[in-house]
Amino acid sequence: MYGHPIYSGQAEAKGLFYAGDPCSGDSCQIGGNIATNAGGNRAVKYGTTRHQIYAVTVVNPLGEIVQLGSRLKKQSTGYCLDQLIIGSEGTLGIITKATIKLLPKLPCKIDILAVFQSADAAIDTVKEILKKHITPTCVEFMDNITLHSVERFLQTTLPGSDVGNHLIIELEGETEDDLDDKIMRLDEICTKRGAAEVLVADSERIWKARKSFAEAVRAESLIVCKEDLVVPVDKEPELLHFILAQAQKYNLITRIAAHAGDGNIHLNILKNEDIPYEEWEKRIANNQAELYTYVYSLGGRLSGEHGIGYKRRGLMERFTDPVELSMMKAIKKALDPNNILNPGKIFKLDD
Amino acid sequence: MYGHPIYSGQAEAKGLFYAGDPCSGDSCQIGGNIATNAGGNRAVKYGTTRHQIYAVTVVNPLGEIVQLGSRLKKQSTGYCLDQLIIGSEGTLGIITKATIKLLPKLPCKIDILAVFQSADAAIDTVKEILKKHITPTCVEFMDNITLHSVERFLQTTLPGSDVGNHLIIELEGETEDDLDDKIMRLDEICTKRGAAEVLVADSERIWKARKSFAEAVRAESLIVCKEDLVVPVDKEPELLHFILAQAQKYNLITRIAAHAGDGNIHLNILKNEDIPYEEWEKRIANNQAELYTYVYSLGGRLSGEHGIGYKRRGLMERFTDPVELSMMKAIKKALDPNNILNPGKIFKLDD
Repeated sequence: MYGHPIYSGQAEAKGLFYAGDPCSGDSCQIGGNIATNAGGNRAVKYGTTRHQIYAVTVVNPLGEIVQLGSRLKKQSTGYCLDQLIIGSEGTLGIITKATIKLLPKLPCKIDILAVFQSADAAIDTVKEILKKHITPTCVEFMDNITLHSVERFLQTTLPGSDVGNHLIIELEGETEDDLDDKIMRLDEICTKRGAAEVLVADSERIWKARKSFAEAVRAESLIVCKEDLVVPVDKEPELLHFILAQAQKYNLITRIAAHAGDGNIHLNILKNEDIPYEEWEKRIANNQAELYTYVYSLGGRLSGEHGIGYKRRGLMERFTDPVELSMMKAIKKALDPNNILNPGKIFKLDD
Repeated sequence: MYGHPIYSGQAEAKGLFYAGDPCSGDSCQIGGNIATNAGGNRAVKYGTTRHQIYAVTVVNPLGEIVQLGSRLKKQSTGYCLDQLIIGSEGTLGIITKATIKLLPKLPCKIDILAVFQSADAAIDTVKEILKKHITPTCVEFMDNITLHSVERFLQTTLPGSDVGNHLIIELEGETEDDLDDKIMRLDEICTKRGAAEVLVADSERIWKARKSFAEAVRAESLIVCKEDLVVPVDKEPELLHFILAQAQKYNLITRIAAHAGDGNIHLNILKNEDIPYEEWEKRIANNQAELYTYVYSLGGRLSGEHGIGYKRRGLMERFTDPVELSMMKAIKKALDPNNILNPGKIFKLDD
């Protein structure tokens, strides 16, 4: 299966759509989305990739071909192996085919941009939005310094970027009336929480800005440490505080965008130009240890949607409950006795 | 953890609710719901038990205590062991604690009863309802003969039961307007598809009838074969045809209720009083073999929500892809090397 189904005109022609929407939609593929359980912008309403998949066909480590899962709304027929494969980063099977869910496309959609002078106030507003029956499709955040980074990259000016932090809230409705009612209630919440402006956004422009985050950062520096922090949504304000306090403590140059409706903060840390690489690396390592200790104390995890791979393996071994880790390793050994599929990814097997 | 969270007044007081709603809600417990991945009436909108659970604490077969999963909207941090445990029928761990999702309760709700003279027409209408942005919370079906069974049990008369088959459709709305709009569109669909009556139902009465299905059948006969068939929703009309043709072929006494919005048909077959038990058992076995061959040819599975246990183990070994089954067994052996947790449930390990 090639290409990302988001771009499938066939679904669109039938009034259907695929709910996954990773920011890397232009370049990623559905197999990778499944292997990492990619999240993306619409997870707040529709869940992550694991919620969009009926079944996967895999070649397992013994070379056998098997379909796991089924095109069913429910089933209780043995172990749920499809969900085990999804997010296992190619260590338990090679995905060769997938049956994905397509949902009926809602007729009405709008993007609202709420500009807050304070990043805290923006993030504090998120859980209020989620509580009030507005069922947003997306709730995205970019802080002020990141908006400037994107503006430089795209050579544009974004609304309220002089002092503002952005919340982008996408709403869908079954009717125009339904949508109007949601917009009204959203406006009320954001205004009450201190939004300087609540605007109907130019969707194409605002999403182009949000989706340029990673590239804009790369244009600023080739040496970047990327974190994919995730905590319960109600703990997100505390995490943001902590990140900013750490940045001050270690003099870190941060760029922050978040799938704020999911508690998933992408923290990119750029290398300071005025210090040697080794010094920066040391700061990063110290920050990381403190940051993840804090994230785990909030009930969070190492990665919201990017996965572990080799890069976070050390942190995985350090922060994961040893019993949970031993169960993962036991499953890996049972299904891949010769350790031939993506060996060393996620965790290292004991010799 | 005792009792079913449906009855938790604490959630209600905060404007929240637990989305699981098994028909056995009066007697079942949340641990059992998780162990079997129970479905219930609201799965069509909210998914099954596996979609309502953030985390489970289990005692694993080695006697270790571990929390699997987390109170997060997304995560990609190693294998998804919580989803493996959910639905594993106590064979991989004993669940001692669960973190469940509570959702904001929608302010408006209504139950619509559509009465169809033909069972086929009722079931044919279901996929139309699911396509049209109405997002029903429940779509339940009872055929005419089953309505009579429930009427006798409850000593009542149900609307349109003289010749009718029931579709119960529950709708929720964020506002009264939103709900009115959905009712109008639902009415239109049902009428166009041949419904004799589309009524606002007396919710308490209609749900009492639906939830009495199992007890009403038990009151008719103590010897009953219960099937929990599940197929893709668009294949449900074909399955209903097949069931009724088989009933005619083997002279079976059937009672049918379905979570029709999920493709999940509960087929209860009562023993014929005029034949010896052995003869009935033979008919049942023949019917079962043909029925599941057909169900699997439609992409269906053995059990939608009741699980396998001992009872369906033979069918499980017969109908499950051998590679899938061998992967399940490998996981069971890896996590429970001494085969001490619910041994022999779901499948029998090779000696």
